[in-house]
Amino acid sequence: NNMELVCVKDFERQAFAKLEKNTLDYYKSGAGEQFTLEQNRAAFRRLRLRPRILRNVSQLDISCRILDEQLKWPMGIAPSAMQKMAHPDGEIGNARAAGKAGAIYILSTLSNTSLEDVAAAAPNTCKWFQLYIYKERHLTEQLVRRVERAGFKALVLTVDAPVFGNRRADVRNKFSLPDHLNLANFEGELANVTTMGGSGIYEYVTNQFDPSITWQDISWLKQLTSLPIVLKGVLTAEDAVLAREFGVDGIIVSNHGARQLDSVPASIEALPEVAKAVGNDMLVMFDGGIMEGNDIFKAIALGAKVVFLGRPALYALAHNGQQGVEEMLEILRKDFETTMALMGCPSFEDITPAMVVHEKTFMKL
Amino acid sequence: NNMELVCVKDFERQAFAKLEKNTLDYYKSGAGEQFTLEQNRAAFRRLRLRPRILRNVSQLDISCRILDEQLKWPMGIAPSAMQKMAHPDGEIGNARAAGKAGAIYILSTLSNTSLEDVAAAAPNTCKWFQLYIYKERHLTEQLVRRVERAGFKALVLTVDAPVFGNRRADVRNKFSLPDHLNLANFEGELANVTTMGGSGIYEYVTNQFDPSITWQDISWLKQLTSLPIVLKGVLTAEDAVLAREFGVDGIIVSNHGARQLDSVPASIEALPEVAKAVGNDMLVMFDGGIMEGNDIFKAIALGAKVVFLGRPALYALAHNGQQGVEEMLEILRKDFETTMALMGCPSFEDITPAMVVHEKTFMKL
Amino acid sequence: NNMELVCVKDFERQAFAKLEKNTLDYYKSGAGEQFTLEQNRAAFRRLRLRPRILRNVSQLDISCRILDEQLKWPMGIAPSAMQKMAHPDGEIGNARAAGKAGAIYILSTLSNTSLEDVAAAAPNTCKWFQLYIYKERHLTEQLVRRVERAGFKALVLTVDAPVFGNRRADVRNKFSLPDHLNLANFEGELANVTTMGGSGIYEYVTNQFDPSITWQDISWLKQLTSLPIVLKGVLTAEDAVLAREFGVDGIIVSNHGARQLDSVPASIEALPEVAKAVGNDMLVMFDGGIMEGNDIFKAIALGAKVVFLGRPALYALAHNGQQGVEEMLEILRKDFETTMALMGCPSFEDITPAMVVHEKTFMKL
Amino acid sequence: NNMELVCVKDFERQAFAKLEKNTLDYYKSGAGEQFTLEQNRAAFRRLRLRPRILRNVSQLDISCRILDEQLKWPMGIAPSAMQKMAHPDGEIGNARAAGKAGAIYILSTLSNTSLEDVAAAAPNTCKWFQLYIYKERHLTEQLVRRVERAGFKALVLTVDAPVFGNRRADVRNKFSLPDHLNLANFEGELANVTTMGGSGIYEYVTNQFDPSITWQDISWLKQLTSLPIVLKGVLTAEDAVLAREFGVDGIIVSNHGARQLDSVPASIEALPEVAKAVGNDMLVMFDGGIMEGNDIFKAIALGAKVVFLGRPALYALAHNGQQGVEEMLEILRKDFETTMALMGCPSFEDITPAMVVHEKTFMKL
Ligand SMILES: Cc1cc2nc3c(=O)[nH]c(=O)nc-3n(C[C@H](O)[C@H](O)[C@H](O)COP(=O)(O)O)c2cc1C
Ligand SMILES: Cc1cc2nc3c(=O)[nH]c(=O)nc-3n(C[C@H](O)[C@H](O)[C@H](O)COP(=O)(O)O)c2cc1C
Ligand SMILES: Cc1cc2nc3c(=O)[nH]c(=O)nc-3n(C[C@H](O)[C@H](O)[C@H](O)COP(=O)(O)O)c2cc1C
Ligand SMILES: Cc1cc2nc3c(=O)[nH]c(=O)nc-3n(C[C@H](O)[C@H](O)[C@H](O)COP(=O)(O)O)c2cc1C
Repeated sequence: NNMELVCVKDFERQAFAKLEKNTLDYYKSGAGEQFTLEQNRAAFRRLRLRPRILRNVSQLDISCRILDEQLKWPMGIAPSAMQKMAHPDGEIGNARAAGKAGAIYILSTLSNTSLEDVAAAAPNTCKWFQLYIYKERHLTEQLVRRVERAGFKALVLTVDAPVFGNRRADVRNKFSLPDHLNLANFEGELANVTTMGGSGIYEYVTNQFDPSITWQDISWLKQLTSLPIVLKGVLTAEDAVLAREFGVDGIIVSNHGARQLDSVPASIEALPEVAKAVGNDMLVMFDGGIMEGNDIFKAIALGAKVVFLGRPALYALAHNGQQGVEEMLEILRKDFETTMALMGCPSFEDITPAMVVHEKTFMKL
Repeated sequence: NNMELVCVKDFERQAFAKLEKNTLDYYKSGAGEQFTLEQNRAAFRRLRLRPRILRNVSQLDISCRILDEQLKWPMGIAPSAMQKMAHPDGEIGNARAAGKAGAIYILSTLSNTSLEDVAAAAPNTCKWFQLYIYKERHLTEQLVRRVERAGFKALVLTVDAPVFGNRRADVRNKFSLPDHLNLANFEGELANVTTMGGSGIYEYVTNQFDPSITWQDISWLKQLTSLPIVLKGVLTAEDAVLAREFGVDGIIVSNHGARQLDSVPASIEALPEVAKAVGNDMLVMFDGGIMEGNDIFKAIALGAKVVFLGRPALYALAHNGQQGVEEMLEILRKDFETTMALMGCPSFEDITPAMVVHEKTFMKL
Repeated sequence: NNMELVCVKDFERQAFAKLEKNTLDYYKSGAGEQFTLEQNRAAFRRLRLRPRILRNVSQLDISCRILDEQLKWPMGIAPSAMQKMAHPDGEIGNARAAGKAGAIYILSTLSNTSLEDVAAAAPNTCKWFQLYIYKERHLTEQLVRRVERAGFKALVLTVDAPVFGNRRADVRNKFSLPDHLNLANFEGELANVTTMGGSGIYEYVTNQFDPSITWQDISWLKQLTSLPIVLKGVLTAEDAVLAREFGVDGIIVSNHGARQLDSVPASIEALPEVAKAVGNDMLVMFDGGIMEGNDIFKAIALGAKVVFLGRPALYALAHNGQQGVEEMLEILRKDFETTMALMGCPSFEDITPAMVVHEKTFMKL
Repeated sequence: NNMELVCVKDFERQAFAKLEKNTLDYYKSGAGEQFTLEQNRAAFRRLRLRPRILRNVSQLDISCRILDEQLKWPMGIAPSAMQKMAHPDGEIGNARAAGKAGAIYILSTLSNTSLEDVAAAAPNTCKWFQLYIYKERHLTEQLVRRVERAGFKALVLTVDAPVFGNRRADVRNKFSLPDHLNLANFEGELANVTTMGGSGIYEYVTNQFDPSITWQDISWLKQLTSLPIVLKGVLTAEDAVLAREFGVDGIIVSNHGARQLDSVPASIEALPEVAKAVGNDMLVMFDGGIMEGNDIFKAIALGAKVVFLGRPALYALAHNGQQGVEEMLEILRKDFETTMALMGCPSFEDITPAMVVHEKTFMKL
């Protein structure tokens, strides 16, 4: 398979051909009938770009400052569990590639590499840590302490997973982590993901994670640490407003890659109402379905300050480890620059709301 | 075929592989071009769930009280004719499985097991009886008497079948009931379903059922019995209002599994107008196209107090008799619980109208 | 091919398997990319029926009176050219079958049977004659005289064909009438349809028909004959209003079976604006895409007093001559009666506008 | 492959079968996922024609006067690079065919035939020259001088290509111009298109064209020449208004055949807002997706005074050189005349806005 890789989709194709079923199914699946999974990409197609001409686009500035860190472009790798199933480079490969690309790396609680090892191996990457709240609160407290010590710059609390989504393929496969891998931030029981008859990861989450967390726990977390707190998994203006009230530092509009509840809006469909509600007061970020430069442009025009990639990073890692991710990010960045130039936007200030419209705008005649 | 069964669709696949043509066609068919049949499911996909975060969902309460009976969840098995064609367990299998699941069982007039036998075999199930009105009114009167005696808790009068729908496959197959089966609530002629050249069941209905029934017959029925009366097959606000005026106890918004008239709205499309018109004054229930937990959630959010399954119960029965139905209901209940939790709704009171919106809501930008 | 025929579509399938390419292509083709051809049927699917319950539908009355003739139901066979290519029974087979079914038969100018022979063979059928205006006006005048003499009850002037539509298959096939057939209302040159390099029928029309006709020619025609005049091929409210002003007796909303100009609205899309504009003052009729009972119901609810079948009659004729057409009409009439009953409409007076709505009605929530 | 060619699509089919991959991919590709490429044609299908009847259409006048030149119909061939890859007749074949058809020919800067040779070979064709602005401004200045001298009648400045679109197939193919061809308006380096690892044409454009051009450069160009200046690649009302302010003579609404930025509107979707904004004051023209007579009619009804063909001319050239293009234009012109006649429009004055509506117009009921 010697095909030239020219777009993110090409990395996906490579990974689909390479990964064994247990892993591939875990990576690619969405919840239920996978309708929202499909919509996460399809909804981008329903948005149209209105490009402006005859502007000097010889010098583009796509850098940005996010939570006091400088990024080469508004890009990050979203937290995804168990990245060594894709490639031995695993979390370190992704973190280093993000660093080289001037992008954020968010490490999942459920990583195959300990947070300390990631921190040591990718010291120059802007790293955030994604948090799940365990029933045993002290586990989460300990994690927070270690995260602070290791130099992560923000805590990303995932709020769309009080219980685990129903991903059919994992149940059919009786998903387990391969024997040579574990959840490296933990020890003993807590480091193992093995099937008890169904999806091992579903069972792990059901047993360990706390489905009773509420907005009060945001206050608890804030008092626990001085790291900025980001909520990941906000899909409504109502919750965005609450997030502002409870003093969080940022939110990621996300439907968890359509892996939690089928039938929720595509991420990009939910973004506008959230950005309209709190975008001026709060850091609004985005993930879900990003595959091309014009997707990034749309998310930014609709109010996101950073966008994150979930599966694309896993697929690029599967294809060729850290180097695969570097290549993929390079291709995507160039595609985004082409988009900025062809939209007539040398900088983010030049992006206006009128530049992204719904396809139905053209039904007026 | 050793596939793990993880969703209702899986039971359908099993049944499609197992049932012989005469039966499968009868079960799966819709009227005419089967456009509404397809829409019964597709219309759910056009509705989107807006989930709320950070609510304590560790304790879910999905029980409910319907017509003075306590249910474990708002679920029932819709009346469907001739269930022994699916499996020898037939009506009894379904009724017992419903009972175990804490759900309602509605027995069809056209059952392969007599209502007395079903009552005896599933004493602890909340059972309702579905009524057709025969041209010979005394037949219906006798049925009502027996139903009362056998301890059924409600009469469900099907009002969308004054004549029988045009189901092409049954005509092509010259549908007959297999020799060893009959309509067990009747004797002689009335117990037989045999072809006279076309669909045997079409011919039976055309000969026996009364196409002249009107709202006045509701009064007649009310005076005949003190059982609660439910109308099954209401699709418009106009008729819901009439139902209220004529003093019925509940209605089931239903298009008869798209088996009567092709081109009518999907059931879930008709629900909102009905619920808006009478939902505060009357028990509004729903069937048509339910396959997943999020379908149930949508129907409830749009005003249904209970939802019923037609084909899924037949398919699960075909797969593995009573046990198949138990498994299917268990899977569906868990999927519904996951939906409740991920929607941030520990109880039905937490469900709000803003949680279910039409996809076009996201076309605003 | 021994399949039971249970719907109009089945006759189409039979004809597709039976007819040779030259004929089949001529019958089935639409203009250009055949987009409107597809829409003629698809647009019906976008309309939904809202059925009413508990009305006495034991006695249906679907008869009607049209231009002083009594019909068993509001049905007719649309004019189509050269019907003997389908089957030796040709125009006579269709005319007789229409008569037996209590429906109208419209004979095309371009028939393979002379109008006198049709009149003689089907004396009891309500027959109308479809007129094209020849450059040589006296040809049309003579036709009108013969039509009057033969006892046809109305003249149907086709107004959507000043030039002939671009039907690609006919050009590719260099369409000619088979040697043993001719245009039986004419003699010599005018009776022949042979290719001069392209589609023979295109060339015939281009040479013979008058592209300069205007509303003034309606006045000319009215003064020529006292037969009622119907315009066939009206698609806009604007032209319907003009038709009323110029004193025609009826119009047929039609896009000529999508054979003239691709991209025009589906017939059923155009019907409402026409009926709204002139439906109270004028006989509005309809053709295009009718395949099922619910299609007929929709057309009537939207304002048509009669509907006509084009291709279905040709396909049924191809399948089995006059008898095929009788069977097809019988199936369709029963399907229409089922629709009336299941809509709760014992008669046309019971049909209300609220019974047919566009699918988008259900997007409101 | 002896198929009768009866529509533009047929020429496309021929070319697809004939051209080798490097060339075919270059010709047919759009940017990115090619979503807009598909929409360029699909958006036409969403527009419906409302035809008027009983108007004298025996004499059609479809001639027009554009920038002081008389055309037989409102048609032109859009500039496309490197036409000799299609056929040895190349630019000259296209230019001569356009002349014979009474249409405009726009020569691309990036032609395989020098502008002087085209001018000499097609003296009677109305020729315009498409301009790209090189970083080395004197190159563009020299071109303008040569263009004036050779008798071209207008300069068409392409404004949607400050950087080159991301066309994946060309990157995969490492597109180069075949050895025997060059960019004939240039010499040495500038005449070569060879790969440096990716798409040779992408690399050429990136190295040579000036991404810093702005509206000020329009003023520069105007002062450089007295030829009329047309901007090609306007997609918004905003930019159309600016074009008027900066005194250009005309604009072509175009998305460059969807080759620059995927996700922009279909050309025909963008036309109405542009025509509404400036159509009364300025020459508005159109290209993108034209395949049939009814497409041309729609573009004109929505405000275009001329339409241009990109790929169709290349495909017809590939099929059979100059003669292929002549045939294709003849077929298309006849199809357009049929459309005019069937719309009841003997001349452009008869076209009204009510004649072209969006499909959603028919959702009102
Ligand atoms: C295999 C996989 C594992 C994931 N694991 C986590 C996780 O541990 N924590 C979390 O917050 N999100 C997790 N996500 C969700 C991602 O962070 C992100 O929201 C999503 O993948 C973005 O959509 P995309 O894949 O279309 O880019 C996971 C996603 C995938 C695909
Ligand atoms: C095979 C079959 C037989 C049915 N028989 C009856 C019946 O006897 N009486 C009745 O009221 N409804 C009958 N129905 C309709 C169901 O009660 C119910 O309305 C419908 O199946 C719900 O849609 P679903 O199949 O998509 O869940 C039948 C449905 C099926 C599929
Ligand atoms: C093969 C064929 C020939 C036709 N010939 C004529 C004709 O001679 N005169 C005419 O007014 N309409 C003619 N029509 C149009 C029909 O009268 C009618 O408008 C159309 O077929 C209705 O659409 P349907 O085929 O979907 O029912 C013809 C249609 C077909 C299919
Ligand atoms: C192969 C090819 C080469 C093109 N080269 C140029 C060019 O050199 N300059 C330019 O302004 N437009 C160029 N275009 C765009 C065309 O001028 C035109 O905008 C487009 O092809 C119209 O869309 P259509 O192909 O659907 O007709 C090119 C298009 C194609 C297909």
